[in-house]
Amino acid sequence: MNFLSNHIFSTLKTIPQGSDNRGTGLLLQAGFIRQEMAGVYIFLPMGLRVLRNIESIIRDELDAIGAQEILMTALGSKEHWMTTGRWDQEKMDILFHVPASRSKEYALNPTHEEIVTPLMNEFVRSYKNLPAAVYQFQTKFRNEVRAKSGLLRGREFLMKDLYSFHETSEHLDVYFEKVREAYVSIFNRLEIGDKTHYAFASGGAFSKYSYEFQTELGIGEDTLYVCDACGQKVNNELIQDNNFICPSCEHTSAHTITTSEVGNIFKLGDKFSKDFQLKTSTKDGSNIIPVMGCYGIGVSRLMGVIAEIFADDVGLIWPKAIAPYTDYILVQCDNKKSAIQLALQLEKSGKKVLIDDRDMGFGKKAKDADLFGIPNRIVISEKTLAKGGYELKVRGSSVETIVQYDFDI
Amino acid sequence: MNFLSNHIFSTLKTIPQGSDNRGTGLLLQAGFIRQEMAGVYIFLPMGLRVLRNIESIIRDELDAIGAQEILMTALGSKEHWMTTGRWDQEKMDILFHVPASRSKEYALNPTHEEIVTPLMNEFVRSYKNLPAAVYQFQTKFRNEVRAKSGLLRGREFLMKDLYSFHETSEHLDVYFEKVREAYVSIFNRLEIGDKTHYAFASGGAFSKYSYEFQTELGIGEDTLYVCDACGQKVNNELIQDNNFICPSCEHTSAHTITTSEVGNIFKLGDKFSKDFQLKTSTKDGSNIIPVMGCYGIGVSRLMGVIAEIFADDVGLIWPKAIAPYTDYILVQCDNKKSAIQLALQLEKSGKKVLIDDRDMGFGKKAKDADLFGIPNRIVISEKTLAKGGYELKVRGSSVETIVQYDFDI
Repeated sequence: MNFLSNHIFSTLKTIPQGSDNRGTGLLLQAGFIRQEMAGVYIFLPMGLRVLRNIESIIRDELDAIGAQEILMTALGSKEHWMTTGRWDQEKMDILFHVPASRSKEYALNPTHEEIVTPLMNEFVRSYKNLPAAVYQFQTKFRNEVRAKSGLLRGREFLMKDLYSFHETSEHLDVYFEKVREAYVSIFNRLEIGDKTHYAFASGGAFSKYSYEFQTELGIGEDTLYVCDACGQKVNNELIQDNNFICPSCEHTSAHTITTSEVGNIFKLGDKFSKDFQLKTSTKDGSNIIPVMGCYGIGVSRLMGVIAEIFADDVGLIWPKAIAPYTDYILVQCDNKKSAIQLALQLEKSGKKVLIDDRDMGFGKKAKDADLFGIPNRIVISEKTLAKGGYELKVRGSSVETIVQYDFDI
Repeated sequence: MNFLSNHIFSTLKTIPQGSDNRGTGLLLQAGFIRQEMAGVYIFLPMGLRVLRNIESIIRDELDAIGAQEILMTALGSKEHWMTTGRWDQEKMDILFHVPASRSKEYALNPTHEEIVTPLMNEFVRSYKNLPAAVYQFQTKFRNEVRAKSGLLRGREFLMKDLYSFHETSEHLDVYFEKVREAYVSIFNRLEIGDKTHYAFASGGAFSKYSYEFQTELGIGEDTLYVCDACGQKVNNELIQDNNFICPSCEHTSAHTITTSEVGNIFKLGDKFSKDFQLKTSTKDGSNIIPVMGCYGIGVSRLMGVIAEIFADDVGLIWPKAIAPYTDYILVQCDNKKSAIQLALQLEKSGKKVLIDDRDMGFGKKAKDADLFGIPNRIVISEKTLAKGGYELKVRGSSVETIVQYDFDI
């Protein structure tokens, strides 16, 4: 359990002026994050707990489909970026070039095909080594001209990126579907499944289409066309001259929704395998060039999206699975001992408890409790003890119920 | 439990030629790490597990002294680095300057005084907010002219850095001692306590001395003078013209040992507080400038140091607390079911189990087991089953004992 009286990062009375949006404003007000520069954020203890909880759900689902966690690098080799032609800032304008001693230069990686492909070159030599899938949680860097929208568009941000390697496109298709299902589970566990849509998007230089997970969000930077016939979603970057043609059913009328991209999945074909001369032997002894898939989730962006979606007028509201704590206990006067006893009991059943033992009035504490968005608010006071228990209020509901202790207090 | 048959990153037959040192060579051979560029390393699954285990011990000890975990940024604001005068590469030649769009420039932070001090300026306004201590695990960047020695000297590496803020130097002294004790516990838990020495080092621009934790290591880059009278250790950077004078007892003869710096603790005084105009009110209503301490541990370097210290002729040997797995089960023929049953049993008591179910001979598997350095090697075969159990061999010892199952198999 943790005690709020030890907490350094106090809340603010109001949302800071000039906050990019309500979610970011509340994250700032509640002391979850601070801006170091535009698009570059510091995570304070409660924010970091949320971030790690999101990571943990993603890790869980990716381990379940046999992907292996590694940690690549922030600095990239210029040589590798030259190999794929993406060192050129005309081709990749968001790539930071970092001058180093002895006239060297490094990249600050915004994505990791240039790192993972040469890495895997050593290990995927035979069809027996395939499929191979690796992922990481890594800080990414983008030289954005404009960085607004709080955690939604960063110059520095946390991403999960997964790369898979396959003998044939059919094998890739099978794994691709597995990842899609894992993503659906992830967004469901984050409680944004119902608002998150699978959409066609541009395939860039690699294929006709890529696929995105887009979450409905008023402040999102993307627009999806929703086919009026079959409901298929299509990123507006695919719509030319306002002429919508559904890639699923060829229907031509659609309406639009505003969204934020939380995940994307790409079939890369053999672009990077070719560049880095990846070759594996097949069962019959010939050599083939493996095909690749890549799959991203914006971890820090997800935190911003979720903050924005669930917040109400008085503060943040976290889904249980990623809340910084599951239970907040508001202690009044001399009831700290009862609070600690209750917290110990709760922690036995896997709860994470924050005890608000600060020397301040009920009103101020209750206001912070709303702001933090911890699912369960528990009040222990003379009044509740007289009623034989504690008062439980679930964040987002207005009902206060008295819960009996199932142990002596 | 994990199965080695799913593991992508196979071992190498021999240590790669040109490895910087034996520890690095074995980490490469065992498939724990790969070099992206000189001084820039990728952590593969087993290496990442070791890194996270080291982190977890450090976190545990720092939480216990009331420090709060946050996550600052890799990119730093030029303005903040200008404020302290350290933007100037003549003053800090290892600071990467990163050109960005619209003629902006960022720093790639090699240390975080320039980020943490303005951050804390908002929160430590009164003596009631002090002491305050925050720490992070953060990737650091250093524009090193030369980067050799594997994980021991990186251009990109993982560090834990802690910063503390205090009303007076006396308060700082008290906290400083707490951190020193926490560090002793950390190095003891990492099983390098007996080889790790507390030494006087240069205080740089901030004070007469700083203090280092230096681990005895043949390939280390530091030299310590050990006072022949009182045993006090002193970094050779403090010794002028070969004239040793012990800062503790003023004795003048000493011998030297070769070491690697695994931690350093600094009293920063009010240098950064002044630069960023940090001010807090005291009990009597006046204002003071808080004093600061900073405390580093090289997390990825520790992994390299520990690999180097404990390795033997046939592979790595990990201390139990940070081994990628506690137990390795070598399965032969059709005993996989027994192995899984045993693994489930072991995991109930908190063990982390790796099952070697690869389709290869005993000799090759046993060689890899030695290479990985997992503390317990368990063999289940017809032979051991006939003797009523499994064979247990502790890595680093040559004794093989038959252990009875305490459950039906």
